[in-house]
Amino acid sequence: MKFKIKKEILNENLNNVSKALSNKNIIPILSGIKFELKEEGLYLIATDDDITIQSFIEKENSIEIFELGSIIIPGRYFIDIVRKIPTEEINLETDGLILNITTKTSQYNLNGMHYNDFPERTLELIKSPIVLSSKIIKNIVNQTSFSVSNQESRPILTGINLLINKDLLECVATDSYRLSKKILKLDNKFTDKINIVIPGKNLIELSKILDEKETNVEIHIFSNNILFKFSNILFQSRLLNGTYPDTSKLIKEEHILKITTNLEELYNVIDRASLLTNEKEKNVVKMDVFENELIISSTSLEIGNIEEKMSIEKDSKENIKIAFSSKYMMEALKSFKSEKIDIYLSGEIKPIILKEQENDSLIQLILPIKTF
Amino acid sequence: MKFKIKKEILNENLNNVSKALSNKNIIPILSGIKFELKEEGLYLIATDDDITIQSFIEKENSIEIFELGSIIIPGRYFIDIVRKIPTEEINLETDGLILNITTKTSQYNLNGMHYNDFPERTLELIKSPIVLSSKIIKNIVNQTSFSVSNQESRPILTGINLLINKDLLECVATDSYRLSKKILKLDNKFTDKINIVIPGKNLIELSKILDEKETNVEIHIFSNNILFKFSNILFQSRLLNGTYPDTSKLIKEEHILKITTNLEELYNVIDRASLLTNEKEKNVVKMDVFENELIISSTSLEIGNIEEKMSIEKDSKENIKIAFSSKYMMEALKSFKSEKIDIYLSGEIKPIILKEQENDSLIQLILPIKTF
Repeated sequence: MKFKIKKEILNENLNNVSKALSNKNIIPILSGIKFELKEEGLYLIATDDDITIQSFIEKENSIEIFELGSIIIPGRYFIDIVRKIPTEEINLETDGLILNITTKTSQYNLNGMHYNDFPERTLELIKSPIVLSSKIIKNIVNQTSFSVSNQESRPILTGINLLINKDLLECVATDSYRLSKKILKLDNKFTDKINIVIPGKNLIELSKILDEKETNVEIHIFSNNILFKFSNILFQSRLLNGTYPDTSKLIKEEHILKITTNLEELYNVIDRASLLTNEKEKNVVKMDVFENELIISSTSLEIGNIEEKMSIEKDSKENIKIAFSSKYMMEALKSFKSEKIDIYLSGEIKPIILKEQENDSLIQLILPIKTF
Repeated sequence: MKFKIKKEILNENLNNVSKALSNKNIIPILSGIKFELKEEGLYLIATDDDITIQSFIEKENSIEIFELGSIIIPGRYFIDIVRKIPTEEINLETDGLILNITTKTSQYNLNGMHYNDFPERTLELIKSPIVLSSKIIKNIVNQTSFSVSNQESRPILTGINLLINKDLLECVATDSYRLSKKILKLDNKFTDKINIVIPGKNLIELSKILDEKETNVEIHIFSNNILFKFSNILFQSRLLNGTYPDTSKLIKEEHILKITTNLEELYNVIDRASLLTNEKEKNVVKMDVFENELIISSTSLEIGNIEEKMSIEKDSKENIKIAFSSKYMMEALKSFKSEKIDIYLSGEIKPIILKEQENDSLIQLILPIKTF
């Protein structure tokens, strides 16, 4: 393998695949990046056995090829070197299992590994994938992924449940204390029902690579993996095995009280009330709906207490006292972008449901905490 | 104690004293801030037994006093609350040992402690202090403090040695592997010789509060503490007991080879060479002076090797090979601001000395590492 490449372009593509580099040193090959130089250009591939990312650099305008070939290079070291090299072009050449990186004044030799040792990953495509814009996918991930469980005791809850039925796409994440649900209408109707669970952390890595623009992303779903194709990138994630719990019954239509208030103001009030709370005691904050006021309070025997009032609108004369985790409530509130927020209450020990006004596409649910 | 105060001004002064809040929870009172409201204004004081900081807010334009008094308040909680309160003014009032913080829509009650329980710190002043600008003090700290030892086995080396003799001020820091020395000429001659050792980490905290402007800082030196007075702030640090080693003989006038090269380029070359090194193996980088070139290299059996060349000027025909810690060399190089740097070499196992061209005010010394 021997070629000359523009540094900035190599850098950018290394950054894409770096998200799949394993940080664990158990299997050295998984901390490597596979280079495959073909007639059409350079393929970079990395995998940590959970996600696999391929980034392709077209020969045109970026690469001058002298000799085709393949090698696996220690990922982090190579990325650091390329980032810090001051020249605009870099010469890369293999000498057996060594990669020589040369500029006018410098020579770096990195010990590589044989490309045959790299785990085989078939990056298949289907004929009619789902197509969504990168902006929409980023949104779905940001609005749901914080609710996935980080406990390995129930592995299925560490994933996001993706359901497709005809032209309806539904994403659900829950750690069993709270739930996030996003509903989208697709442009096309699908005949097959889809019900899969994608590891939450993998979708967070995906959203880091997706741009803010309206780039089309093809979603290819298989029985044990999902593949996202966009720009010059293939991003594959394994799926979680098992059945995701049916959460549709948790979100009920009836409520005894709906309150409407300013979203940003509510967030800031809860943020201040949470100053005296701590994670060990579940960040408990109390909410007291009394007449046309909301009283948010928290108490720490050791440090003191906080109480703030804000005005609200109500749809009934009911008054309710309820307590919840300020951390969960703040993460849920942050997922909305509207000026006002609707909070549906059904009782002191019933789920709290948050929605934007006249918009059912995003639902956040939080279980209250019993404090009496 | 009862008063109304402008939030921004309180915030700013809390920030000053926060540097002296203890993070250890062993003695709760040391994580508190003492409020002393007097006729002339509000004194805020914090101490962690190592440094003591007092910040004074003049009554004029900032405070409306209703009742004088004193109390000690849990520092971090109070600072967080004040930072997040959205109003421009805050009402503070003590009710026994509780501090009430009130705005139009909120009420915070913090459990305080009696002001008598606060450790007594006398913040004395002398008649004729040394006066330096805040910019100069910040510079001295930045150019020397990285060389102090972080090993408690020789506590005296965790400090910076301050020597004053007539109109000459000298600051030295060394961890016995490298040394930083800054020399300044003072405006006035002092009759008493001064030789004290100030904990390096305390000077780093001081430099964080000092502004970039040419604010005058008074330096008041006592037998067991040093006090810096500037703006509305008093900053006191304890001194280290013991005799600082005499390092004057380490820096010799003779050398067998002086090389001169571009400072930034040398820094970047060593930065890249250090990519394959690690802290466990002392970040060893080799420097090979051969004819009119400098060859910088590093080797890792596991990962590979790096070699870069750069042009230099020399004052003799000598060639030398020497190895050193890239971390130490980079920290030393970073302390200079000139375009070119002079490196004085006396042999493969003799100290490496760095200076700006025709400027002896800052000297950096690094011991080489034997690699053969």
